[in-house]
Amino acid sequence: MQIKVIKNILTRNEGQAQLNRSLFAEEKILCINMMSSPGAGKTTILERTIDKLKSVFNIGVIEGDLMTSKDAERINSHGVPVVQINTEGGCHLSADMIYQAMEEIIIKKPDVQDIIVIENVGNLVCPGVFDLGEDFKVVVSSVTEGDDKPIKYPRMFSEAKACILNKIDLLPYTNFNMDNFLNDLYSLNPKIKMLQVSAFTGEGMDDWYSWLKDEIVWKTKKQLVK
Amino acid sequence: MQIKVIKNILTRNEGQAQLNRSLFAEEKILCINMMSSPGAGKTTILERTIDKLKSVFNIGVIEGDLMTSKDAERINSHGVPVVQINTEGGCHLSADMIYQAMEEIIIKKPDVQDIIVIENVGNLVCPGVFDLGEDFKVVVSSVTEGDDKPIKYPRMFSEAKACILNKIDLLPYTNFNMDNFLNDLYSLNPKIKMLQVSAFTGEGMDDWYSWLKDEIVWKTKKQLVK
Repeated sequence: MQIKVIKNILTRNEGQAQLNRSLFAEEKILCINMMSSPGAGKTTILERTIDKLKSVFNIGVIEGDLMTSKDAERINSHGVPVVQINTEGGCHLSADMIYQAMEEIIIKKPDVQDIIVIENVGNLVCPGVFDLGEDFKVVVSSVTEGDDKPIKYPRMFSEAKACILNKIDLLPYTNFNMDNFLNDLYSLNPKIKMLQVSAFTGEGMDDWYSWLKDEIVWKTKKQLVK
Repeated sequence: MQIKVIKNILTRNEGQAQLNRSLFAEEKILCINMMSSPGAGKTTILERTIDKLKSVFNIGVIEGDLMTSKDAERINSHGVPVVQINTEGGCHLSADMIYQAMEEIIIKKPDVQDIIVIENVGNLVCPGVFDLGEDFKVVVSSVTEGDDKPIKYPRMFSEAKACILNKIDLLPYTNFNMDNFLNDLYSLNPKIKMLQVSAFTGEGMDDWYSWLKDEIVWKTKKQLVK
């Protein structure tokens, strides 16, 4: 009984995710779904990314949180449109929440956005099960969480197109073993794009901007002024 | 429909949790449910706690993970009974899983255990909803996750009897604001026992051992040799 209902929820979510995906395709908008443990640094990465790329691309953000609009306030101060979704205790975003948020930032102003970044609820388990209609997933992990996260939470890492390992400035103060992390990660997902960064110091962030820029150009077909 | 089924699941879980609680009361065993984000340091705290207290108390551990038995192997090397529960992707432990695990470490050897520590799945959302029959919850947060965790994940912090703030050795390298953390925490839960530790260096751990020892003695009525 329980299993059947959960299956129904997932089937309904999948239908809405396909509608979202069609909308993103039609509007030539790249949509990425960022996921991580609580406190891995998604919002800080996003703040820096917005500052770097907002002169070139139109960026919209959908913030998922249980409660509060703290993250949306942080994003809003960088001058891009942002919608906060409060799940009221729910552990993940779903495709219908995204569709409603898009009404705010896309549908009222078609042809305006190049990229929509969804910052999912901080949770390394549940968000991975719900397709939101995104082009791809990005998983953020951080050095201080330890090197065993890929093997312990494999779904997150095996389904992502890119993995951002954040807080590398703290490597000297931890017992994080980079070889263990990379071996497990590539065993799960040999094609994953791996980026080592510190969103705090800025180290390594240029590789991420450059990779993301190529992905946006590919999806939007936007001609950039040289 | 969805809501009704979820309510049924919670009601059934509550029934089993009460049975677990009765069993712990009857056997005079303290049961604690440790919860945190992935990588906050639950296992390391537990390893140190076992080494410190195992000569005084009989300690049993129930490890919850999506996959792998890595954490159980770590605990096992410290010479205490441990049962690994793999949720196969599930985001929390439930009361019936605990009952089954107890059959392994308690029911076959009654009157042996003084404390059972449940290390829940690394997740700051879902485990908080499922009563396992524990005496109380302990939430572990870490400095590197940022100071906004209590306000963003309030249920975890408002229902715990103790909060262990781990990784305080990394305070000088982050922008963690202790006042913000403590103000939010005490607003949610004025009576919570707050412990600042580094399980890595050992700093602050004595306060935790001492507090936990008192809790075990209170529940087990064990007379300690002076």
